[in-house]
Amino acid sequence: MDKRPIITLTTDFGYKDPFVGIMKGVMLKINPSIDIIDITHGITPQNILEASFMIEMSFAYFPVKTIHVVVIDPGVGSVRRPILVITDHHYFIGPDNGVFSRIYNSTESLNVIQITAEHYFMPNRSSTFHGRDIFAPVAAWLSKDINVSRFGEPVADYVSLQVPVPLMPTSNVIEGEVIYTDRFGNATTNIKVEKIDDVAKNNPEAKPKVLFKNKEAPIKYHYSQVSDKGIYSLTNSFGYLELFVYKGSASSDYGIVVGEKVTVILA
Amino acid sequence: MDKRPIITLTTDFGYKDPFVGIMKGVMLKINPSIDIIDITHGITPQNILEASFMIEMSFAYFPVKTIHVVVIDPGVGSVRRPILVITDHHYFIGPDNGVFSRIYNSTESLNVIQITAEHYFMPNRSSTFHGRDIFAPVAAWLSKDINVSRFGEPVADYVSLQVPVPLMPTSNVIEGEVIYTDRFGNATTNIKVEKIDDVAKNNPEAKPKVLFKNKEAPIKYHYSQVSDKGIYSLTNSFGYLELFVYKGSASSDYGIVVGEKVTVILA
Amino acid sequence: MDKRPIITLTTDFGYKDPFVGIMKGVMLKINPSIDIIDITHGITPQNILEASFMIEMSFAYFPVKTIHVVVIDPGVGSVRRPILVITDHHYFIGPDNGVFSRIYNSTESLNVIQITAEHYFMPNRSSTFHGRDIFAPVAAWLSKDINVSRFGEPVADYVSLQVPVPLMPTSNVIEGEVIYTDRFGNATTNIKVEKIDDVAKNNPEAKPKVLFKNKEAPIKYHYSQVSDKGIYSLTNSFGYLELFVYKGSASSDYGIVVGEKVTVILA
Repeated sequence: MDKRPIITLTTDFGYKDPFVGIMKGVMLKINPSIDIIDITHGITPQNILEASFMIEMSFAYFPVKTIHVVVIDPGVGSVRRPILVITDHHYFIGPDNGVFSRIYNSTESLNVIQITAEHYFMPNRSSTFHGRDIFAPVAAWLSKDINVSRFGEPVADYVSLQVPVPLMPTSNVIEGEVIYTDRFGNATTNIKVEKIDDVAKNNPEAKPKVLFKNKEAPIKYHYSQVSDKGIYSLTNSFGYLELFVYKGSASSDYGIVVGEKVTVILA
Repeated sequence: MDKRPIITLTTDFGYKDPFVGIMKGVMLKINPSIDIIDITHGITPQNILEASFMIEMSFAYFPVKTIHVVVIDPGVGSVRRPILVITDHHYFIGPDNGVFSRIYNSTESLNVIQITAEHYFMPNRSSTFHGRDIFAPVAAWLSKDINVSRFGEPVADYVSLQVPVPLMPTSNVIEGEVIYTDRFGNATTNIKVEKIDDVAKNNPEAKPKVLFKNKEAPIKYHYSQVSDKGIYSLTNSFGYLELFVYKGSASSDYGIVVGEKVTVILA
Repeated sequence: MDKRPIITLTTDFGYKDPFVGIMKGVMLKINPSIDIIDITHGITPQNILEASFMIEMSFAYFPVKTIHVVVIDPGVGSVRRPILVITDHHYFIGPDNGVFSRIYNSTESLNVIQITAEHYFMPNRSSTFHGRDIFAPVAAWLSKDINVSRFGEPVADYVSLQVPVPLMPTSNVIEGEVIYTDRFGNATTNIKVEKIDDVAKNNPEAKPKVLFKNKEAPIKYHYSQVSDKGIYSLTNSFGYLELFVYKGSASSDYGIVVGEKVTVILA
């Protein structure tokens, strides 16, 4: 069977500049027998937390041993370290700036290696494009079954950013916030619906109410269940509570941005 | 020869969210020996007719047995059915909402199957992302030569939307409309140039005149044949009459949108 | 080893229309055993010089014998010729409108062939989409090891556009200009930093000063070396002098567009 190693790419390089294509060229020169898959290059420039959420949403849908390269790298050229993260079933390569914070929280085994083996880098590397000069070539070499220990030594002090988590001011209230808005204007919160279910178990007669900006967003099961342009909520396909407007945009119709508070009350 | 099954993707998911990348991961997990080709992810959100035109323009350029996955799916999670469409030489997978309307009109043999075999779906499927949970895995299983009959039973009442067709109020007049405007602002009409040629045969001394908004768009052969910023028309590369402005935009310079009436008079 | 021929694509077709997907279908029909890599489809419509710079930046990072297809083609359908350019290690296919001007300057051996062998084209080719009808199929046939001489005869009068080069009004002044602004608003000039170094050798006590709009852009080594929103300069990853604003946009914050004059004074 023709099974080739898979390398995914997640960057803030956009779709106009040739940077992503160049990274692919670098990888194919080292290992022509790979499949390169774009997750997205549309990360908001320098938005490390957004990228962290994107890669957390995506990685587990790929085959085991997939190598995920993530380049959101405002500190390129500074002392920030390049790292290789090994989890239960996947590899991650990128800058040590917290872009893998959500990965650290979602794996059992975790091994973070500072990449120091310069012979796997591009010669004459620049101080402004480590996607091309470090991350792409290291990923391509790793895809050739180079042992991870060959890339550097484990580190324990990798950067882990504070990810916004929902609060529970009382036993029947969950206070979360919007962490992402997608192309359809759907606003994902950081409230896992299983958390609402847990709380509901302790309040068997209570019904959950979703509130934002003092407005209720009634809970539905799927988008086309409503036909008006009101705001509603549902469990999205990643298990999070999400606000939506059917054939509209929760984000622009209701002015919802990342950070917007959303509260669930079981009463 | 290293020939791998081809799966194409056409969606309205855009280029910022990770949804397309996730669908690719799902497919590669099931069948790592495929080539996945993006047709476009820039379909206007929920625009079923636009997607139908895009896939009609594209599919025949791919090798026989290509599997075309089309996800424009505002009714996801509702009772709308997932379907597998088998034509003379191609497969199509998507929601039964009319997105394949133009395919139904362009094939001799046609077999539409309602996909019901849930063991080919993702476990714990969501009510909001069937691209990931149904269409991608079904496409990947189909690429492994699973017989089409294994996915479900044929249906005859699939949804076919009314596609705008040109009218002929008199024997020498064709009334059509703009059905698509592209990145260059070129405005494709639904008038096939071979139809104009047919009419011309019956009016051998008549010359065709292209009119829109009471203005003439003189007929040319290729774009750079003119140098001014006037509006002109030509036969585009798909055989349709198209309005254009050389190094300008028919769409924005002349305010042309989808639905704009265009008339051809042979007199 | 599963090594497949690589074909790259660089166009101004954008990410909404299906044109790029169609070109890929055409190529896969001719040679299913290729890897197709997008460099960019975000070239400003009809901007030949921009495309020329993009492909110059990118091609050398790909394996030898890569075939680079570049379709920025406002003259499609006119007398402008399709050409195949063979350099030391790469192939280039596109219209003879100057889009390869920067390639002609960056190779030792150069062979430019006018593509005339119509049996390698799509049958019934259009006058508006030679990406599909000529360039894609020729690239796919070339990837099957068809000898280059089979596509046509060499020509010497290929179109080479004037590329803006820096001037030196005096022995210690370099006058260049901005030739590209990227997604991050970084403004690349046409001044190679090695040229500054050369001049510096003859002025050993002079320090280089970067000026634009009578403002100095102090020279740094990497982006995050500064924390304010001032404008700075550095050597970018392609060896050019570049203006930047850390976590801002030199382009929009300082109104810098392509053509903006930038001067380096060693005094």
